[in-house]
Amino acid sequence: MIRTVLAALAFAALAFSSPQASAADAKQMEINKKNVVEFYNAALNEKDFEKASKYLGATYIQHNPTAPDGAEGLKGFIAFLRDKFPNNKSEIKRVFADGNFVIVHVHAVREPGTRGNAIIDIFRLDDNGKVVEHWDAVQPIPEKAANNNGMF
Amino acid sequence: MIRTVLAALAFAALAFSSPQASAADAKQMEINKKNVVEFYNAALNEKDFEKASKYLGATYIQHNPTAPDGAEGLKGFIAFLRDKFPNNKSEIKRVFADGNFVIVHVHAVREPGTRGNAIIDIFRLDDNGKVVEHWDAVQPIPEKAANNNGMF
Repeated sequence: MIRTVLAALAFAALAFSSPQASAADAKQMEINKKNVVEFYNAALNEKDFEKASKYLGATYIQHNPTAPDGAEGLKGFIAFLRDKFPNNKSEIKRVFADGNFVIVHVHAVREPGTRGNAIIDIFRLDDNGKVVEHWDAVQPIPEKAANNNGMF
Repeated sequence: MIRTVLAALAFAALAFSSPQASAADAKQMEINKKNVVEFYNAALNEKDFEKASKYLGATYIQHNPTAPDGAEGLKGFIAFLRDKFPNNKSEIKRVFADGNFVIVHVHAVREPGTRGNAIIDIFRLDDNGKVVEHWDAVQPIPEKAANNNGMF
């Protein structure tokens, strides 16, 4: 019973990210998705910081533990990719939006011919559709799996 | 130019997951979020397969490479947790919904006192709000990070 109450309270606390039902919000979420896809391609595929930075807002709060904070951190990461993994290809498999958040499911291959990583990124955008915060989880795709469905 | 066209086509192909603006859809997305949070707590925290299985639909297509497919795979995974990591605690930090999909950002600690994993899960639900497919990316939280923002 207490567990149920706690779960209900936890859910209530999480409900801040409710989808809003207005057409205006739906339109903004479509713009947010488009902005994140373009930002992602500019940063990870074209590896063009100048282009990518146009999608950033006043902050770029970074939660990926390997990247320094802010736009400068992104600049350094893109320079690292250009230098060490110029053929990196990040293919977006799915994109979702809820309120100010956009989530992408990505197959990232740093060296052609390798299995690469399964990545799920969460971006927070400001009310102008600019990217201001980033979280992710990165998992190397294993050689063998316990099911035949693949990671995507 | 070709890159831009390809990016536009890729985005168009991804647009199937458009948020729908009707109030009925928004209500169903809230129900989907609630179902996934309850399913997650039943499976990962209470480790109660019978309870968790009530949230499953006709299939449970599993993309986590360590878990066998289907409801039986989930049953085996919960039995493994009860046996090896009875104190596993999975704390949902954020929950999002878009159409038939629910995404959760989770801090999972298998052994109390350890840093644990950052996990982002994607669930697909059927039109009745039952869970029918699962993808995730799991990343161990490192001891040191290049920024001070934490992974959540």
